[in-house]
Order: sequence, then C-alpha cells, then structure tokens
Amino acid sequence: MDARLERQLAFILELDKEKNILRQTHLSDYSRRENDAEHAWHMAVMLYLLREYANEPFDLAKAMMMALIHDVVEIDAGDTYAYDEEAKKTQAEREAKAAERIFGLLPDDQRDELRALFEEYEAQETPEAHIVRSMDSLQPLLLNDKTEGRDWRSHGVRMEQVIRRQEPGRLGSEKLWEFSKALIERNTREGKILK
Amino acid sequence: MDARLERQLAFILELDKEKNILRQTHLSDYSRRENDAEHAWHMAVMLYLLREYANEPFDLAKAMMMALIHDVVEIDAGDTYAYDEEAKKTQAEREAKAAERIFGLLPDDQRDELRALFEEYEAQETPEAHIVRSMDSLQPLLLNDKTEGRDWRSHGVRMEQVIRRQEPGRLGSEKLWEFSKALIERNTREGKILK
Repeated sequence: MDARLERQLAFILELDKEKNILRQTHLSDYSRRENDAEHAWHMAVMLYLLREYANEPFDLAKAMMMALIHDVVEIDAGDTYAYDEEAKKTQAEREAKAAERIFGLLPDDQRDELRALFEEYEAQETPEAHIVRSMDSLQPLLLNDKTEGRDWRSHGVRMEQVIRRQEPGRLGSEKLWEFSKALIERNTREGKILK
Repeated sequence: MDARLERQLAFILELDKEKNILRQTHLSDYSRRENDAEHAWHMAVMLYLLREYANEPFDLAKAMMMALIHDVVEIDAGDTYAYDEEAKKTQAEREAKAAERIFGLLPDDQRDELRALFEEYEAQETPEAHIVRSMDSLQPLLLNDKTEGRDWRSHGVRMEQVIRRQEPGRLGSEKLWEFSKALIERNTREGKILK
C-alpha cells in the first residue's frame, strides 16, 4: 500500500475512538449518553437541512466536514462539559496538543487542511464557523428539550448559563437563535432550567 | 414556531433513533457493536478525505448527505446483515415503507429531495451513489481488519461472500477496490475469512 493512503487510513481508524467519547447530553430517549461521533453526525445532517436559515451564504461541504471533525481533539483531551468552569481553564492547551498528534497522522497537506479547518471553527470568524456553531448549540438543546430537561436538572443549570452557551449561535443564524431563546424561556418557565 | 421549521425539527429528532440501530460490525476496540449514526459519520469523513481516489468527479456535499442518511429507513426496517440471505428477501419492501413514513416528516420539498437522494443511492447509477457505496463497503472492512476479523470469524463468512459485498465499491473507486481486495486476500490467507 502506498504511504499516502496508509496515513489517511491510520487517521480514519484513529477517529473510531470518538465513538467512545461520551458527552453530558443524553439521547432523546434518555437511554444513555451521546458520543462525539453521533453528535457530529447529527450536526452535519442539520447543516444540510437547516441551511436556509443561515445569516450568510456558506460552503456546505466545508461546513459539514468542520462539524464532522470539530471534536476530534477530545480523543486525547476528553470532553469538556460546557458548564464546567474549572475544566475549561486547561481546555485550550490540552486540545492544541491533541490536534498536533491526531491531525499529524494524516499526509502533510491534509494535516494542514484539517488543522486549519479545526482552528477556523475555534476562531469563529467565518460564515462556516458561525453556522457550525449554531448547530453545535442547537443539537443538544433539542435533545435536552425532548428529555424534559433531565440533563439541565441533574446539573442544576441556570438560564443565564444556557443563554451564554447558546447565544454565540446567533452569529450563524438569527432565526435559529430566536427559536432557541424561546425554547430556553419555556423550559425556564417550566422549572427545567433554573432562573 | 412556523410549520416548516417544526417539520424539519421533527425529522431531525426522529433521526436520533439511528443511534440505537446496531450493526453487526464492532468498533475497532471490539468493545461493542457500532450503530448506524456512527457508521454514517465515519463514511462522510472518509468521503472527504479519500475523494482523490474516486473514479469520477462528484458533488461532495451531496455525497456526504447521501452517506449521512443512507441508513435512515433502518429506524423502522432494522439493520439487514450483508450476509443474511433470508432477511435480504424482504428488505426492499420493508425499507420502502419506512422511507415513506420517515421522509414524510419533512416539509414536502425536502421530503422529495431526501427521498430522491436515498433512492439514488439504492439505484447505484451516479458518481455520488458509486463513491458512497465504496465507503459503505470500506468502512466496516477497516474495522473488521483491525479487530483481527472477529466479526467474520463469528459468522463463518467466506471470501466469496466478502468479495460479493465489496466488489460493487469498484464502481466508485478502482484504487480503493484494489486495496480492499488485497486486504480480503490477506485475511483469507490468515484464516480470518474462510476460503
């Protein structure tokens, strides 16, 4: 086998580990926690189906790939819960190291391309980064809402925290942000999110 | 909320069930069986990274979406194991019914678009359908190879069956088919696939 394909397949097999990285969010039937691969799959489908609501035109294939690999560093760095302020302090350093190793499995051109795509997402300065962020926020919001807010309730999450987590999605889609805001307010009225 | 967004989100939540549809293939660490969402996520990443090996030019975003939703009918119809000849007899009918119901959750234009995309994959007549098929074959092959062929061995699978399952991928990528063929031959020599 040629060296290029060998490196591509080594990366592809490494990615398999994302299926074992558990998030805090549960599936919509609350049977178990969701993993990174499932979350990314769901986001990519949402990008395709909800693209009409994006504030700006964007490159669909690029955004889908950004979504599909945006959590890859968690293979080494683990999932950092959105409301865990302590873990968030060391998150950037842990994730940079992980990006170095994991994207480094790829041929050099694809290593650079995917690393750039990952960093573009983190930097949040392009239409693709913005709309992927919208889906990254909206996807667990939908699951949480469907499970009567059980993840919010078990963590005692406050409305202000949910808003802080969700509002950056506004840059990607004003329409979906309006929907999210109404959903958060309803869940707060119903006592599933703390005031 | 407007009716269009409501229907889109109903479909998106319905898709969550794919995370509970188990395939025969195990993860690369053999810890558990893989589900449809994980498999589709992996395929979409592979489409992006291995697109240089496609026999024909293809629309990347379209192929990625085709991969992401190609198993959606299994929510109702269940997973049909590639080597289960009995179950394969009723597969088409079960899956057509499922497509009707599940894609029917979407607004009419997206229902028609996704249903057409699903049927395009089944018909195997376009470059996108061909390259998605390559990934649908190669992805479990890589996992099986990584686990020392444990899924092949536990089902007593013969080389001729694996070839029959894998060879249609040739229409998508001659290069990846050559790689797959060599991998199957090696696993047969090693006794992991029966002669």
